[in-house]
Amino acid sequence: MNVLITAGGTSEKIDDVRKISNTATGRLGSLIADCFLTDESVSVTCLCSENAVLPKKPRARILRISDVQSLQRTVEEEMHARAYDAVIHSMAVSDYRVKYSAPSEWLAAQLAKSVGNGSQNPESLAAQIHSALLSCGGGDRPKKISSDIENVFLCLEKTPKIIGLFKKLQPQTILVGFKLLAGVEETELLDAARNLMKRNECDFVLANDQEKIDENRHEAILLGKDHSMTRLHTKDEIAAAIKEHVMRKAKEGGQK
Amino acid sequence: MNVLITAGGTSEKIDDVRKISNTATGRLGSLIADCFLTDESVSVTCLCSENAVLPKKPRARILRISDVQSLQRTVEEEMHARAYDAVIHSMAVSDYRVKYSAPSEWLAAQLAKSVGNGSQNPESLAAQIHSALLSCGGGDRPKKISSDIENVFLCLEKTPKIIGLFKKLQPQTILVGFKLLAGVEETELLDAARNLMKRNECDFVLANDQEKIDENRHEAILLGKDHSMTRLHTKDEIAAAIKEHVMRKAKEGGQK
Repeated sequence: MNVLITAGGTSEKIDDVRKISNTATGRLGSLIADCFLTDESVSVTCLCSENAVLPKKPRARILRISDVQSLQRTVEEEMHARAYDAVIHSMAVSDYRVKYSAPSEWLAAQLAKSVGNGSQNPESLAAQIHSALLSCGGGDRPKKISSDIENVFLCLEKTPKIIGLFKKLQPQTILVGFKLLAGVEETELLDAARNLMKRNECDFVLANDQEKIDENRHEAILLGKDHSMTRLHTKDEIAAAIKEHVMRKAKEGGQK
Repeated sequence: MNVLITAGGTSEKIDDVRKISNTATGRLGSLIADCFLTDESVSVTCLCSENAVLPKKPRARILRISDVQSLQRTVEEEMHARAYDAVIHSMAVSDYRVKYSAPSEWLAAQLAKSVGNGSQNPESLAAQIHSALLSCGGGDRPKKISSDIENVFLCLEKTPKIIGLFKKLQPQTILVGFKLLAGVEETELLDAARNLMKRNECDFVLANDQEKIDENRHEAILLGKDHSMTRLHTKDEIAAAIKEHVMRKAKEGGQK
């Protein structure tokens, strides 16, 4: 049985020394990998971000990625090269990357030019400013934004959704998605997790809330496509439950 | 002899799961600490960011910080609590923190309101837009920016300069500053390093360029207030040179 586990968090460059990253450490992904690796019949490939915690067991194959673009390329290569029985997509993938950065004064001057002259109704003015906001900042990213500038604006744009790739490339694979929100009601979290499941044909989704994760605790709910719900309280419990559910489903489906 | 070493890189929250960080790992700071720790008479306190590499030698006192605010607080507390003969400020401190974040459409609507009606000359219009750009976005930071938004703007503002604190709090301390630029001519780098030295009364500044740093190489120039210039090629060389120069200066100054 071949299992692909993504772990850690991608980061996106602002310039040559600054980046947008997230709080993911890869610890949960490494525990999930170690759980699967206790089983001699399972081969594990870990797609890890640069500083992610690695599995303790040596048998895992480790591939490193940095940003969403390198993640996408590596997923495509991997899923063309071999068949995966399961994909555990625990990596926190940046939703946004930097479209451009600009000093506030330069941005204001560009917007003033675009507004031009003559009076307009407020709605068309807002639309005009919006279009200018998004089309500003052509040209190359600076190597390092000078720290002499008082205020800098970063325009962020959405990155492509990686989770959608897995079933597209290998419809037979068992897919586990992850939904992390921060400080929301459980019903909102579960709705978001079920949306993720539906949109990306996940077989399972782990729903968790940043505010219920700390050094010793990791509250989560593992949702199944069959409407099963398993409450879990630590990273070790989560890792064990994911392995168990995936292995059972693989057996049911006749995967070896 | 008491030495304070800052190492790693600060990060600034965008929301509860995203942050702006930098490429610093704390590896150079940990090597500098280990160099000083070979000397039994030296006590080392390391102010480290959350994921910074720690010194190998166990004798260092480790204090953890996350963002610029926690760094500032800890530096002030430390320098009130004890006299430091030297401060090696190798930490990459975020120049910017997030003033506010806003969906592009919301920002455009705010700006359209502020521009109001009637025609204006382009300069006063730009000034008006600039002031609106900076004053938008009152209210609390969202716990997690929804990834449904197509484009998000981050308004960044400068953080307080930490390097200025050391000599202000302890004028007698020997201060080593660090200047990192990316892909510039050496003369520009040296000018920037000398400016840093002058502005913050550094005794030494290590000037280095991101593009001349990789796994096995770390090109740098150690500048002294006495106009000395020492070229260094690896992290180990840098750590040894900083220790040697600081110890010599401490002896000259009669520090024990």
